[in-house]
Amino acid sequence: MTKPKLQIALDSQNLAEALETVREVGDVVDILEVGTVLCLQDGMEPVRAIRALYPEKDILADTKCADAGGTVAKNCKNAGANIMTVICCATIPTMQAAKKEIDKLQVELYGDWTFEQAQQWMDIGIDEVVYHQSRDALLSGETWGEKDLKKIQKLIDMGFKVYATGGLDVNTLELFKGINVYAFIAGRGIAKAENPKQAAIDFKEKINEIF
Amino acid sequence: MTKPKLQIALDSQNLAEALETVREVGDVVDILEVGTVLCLQDGMEPVRAIRALYPEKDILADTKCADAGGTVAKNCKNAGANIMTVICCATIPTMQAAKKEIDKLQVELYGDWTFEQAQQWMDIGIDEVVYHQSRDALLSGETWGEKDLKKIQKLIDMGFKVYATGGLDVNTLELFKGINVYAFIAGRGIAKAENPKQAAIDFKEKINEIF
Repeated sequence: MTKPKLQIALDSQNLAEALETVREVGDVVDILEVGTVLCLQDGMEPVRAIRALYPEKDILADTKCADAGGTVAKNCKNAGANIMTVICCATIPTMQAAKKEIDKLQVELYGDWTFEQAQQWMDIGIDEVVYHQSRDALLSGETWGEKDLKKIQKLIDMGFKVYATGGLDVNTLELFKGINVYAFIAGRGIAKAENPKQAAIDFKEKINEIF
Repeated sequence: MTKPKLQIALDSQNLAEALETVREVGDVVDILEVGTVLCLQDGMEPVRAIRALYPEKDILADTKCADAGGTVAKNCKNAGANIMTVICCATIPTMQAAKKEIDKLQVELYGDWTFEQAQQWMDIGIDEVVYHQSRDALLSGETWGEKDLKKIQKLIDMGFKVYATGGLDVNTLELFKGINVYAFIAGRGIAKAENPKQAAIDFKEKINEIF
């Protein structure tokens, strides 16, 4: 079983706030994600800034792109991201256009999607998906369950690298024991911890313990 | 029949480029849209700048929000937008969270959506939708057809204000004769015209002629 990576979602309101988290956890995590809220607040500047700080790390722009895939992907790449996301309800031509321009393209699974669609993504060469527990769904009381874990396993069986995200903490990681998740994405669970660096280290240690 | 409004989609690569279009057409159009590409490039600064230029106009942030609806909507409103978009595959809690924070919320119809979903949106008080021909779909040869017009009519019958967009020009407007579209959204058809101001005036005149 491959050791799952740890990704920090920087869902700050501005670049400076994001850098406070990057300062603490940048050296610990495997992937630095410029979250959607931050992209929409400050555009591609946070991607450029974080690329300047970490020339060698994976940097992901969580654009959740739904259209104009080629343009958005080109812009992300020019800013220094090597990974970006498209939303699952984007059309196949949008995904194809994006895929041409960036190193890695991920489909963000959200709301209603089907395994038939997932197969279509795989057929055009997209093998990364983000399995997402919506923040708003979590706020309204939903949480990780057997249903989620089964879907993740099925996606892995189809050949996808699955990134899991949404309300994760060190304890919820246990739920994924035996499931070959490619990466865990934590946001507030790390950034809003009393000691973000220690929280990131705890995540890494827990991953090492479970997988 | 209400006269359809004209919305300019500013899908520029940066604020300065957008302002070249705004300078030409700002006084002519009814709604100024900061397009998704521009939001992702420059964040909320273009919304702030265009609000500064047009304190009284409708300004739309085309965020195609898929999650964290409350945060994104609050940020859009703080920047000066009175309208924003969510993507149709966003969850109902995301849409509800966004709706609380902004004057008008629109659902961007994209990829696979159903009239049952549309009814759910209506049930939570969202009565605006954007019927979107994908740029990437247009590039791969699809265009406006009877199928699109029937869906638009059905949405209008359900009580939605329908915004129509995607590859529109003065000639394609004819296709909508007799259909009570709330607004037409033009991007390149105006911004990339030899004389953008004249192109916007032509759109307005054509709308006056048809409706």
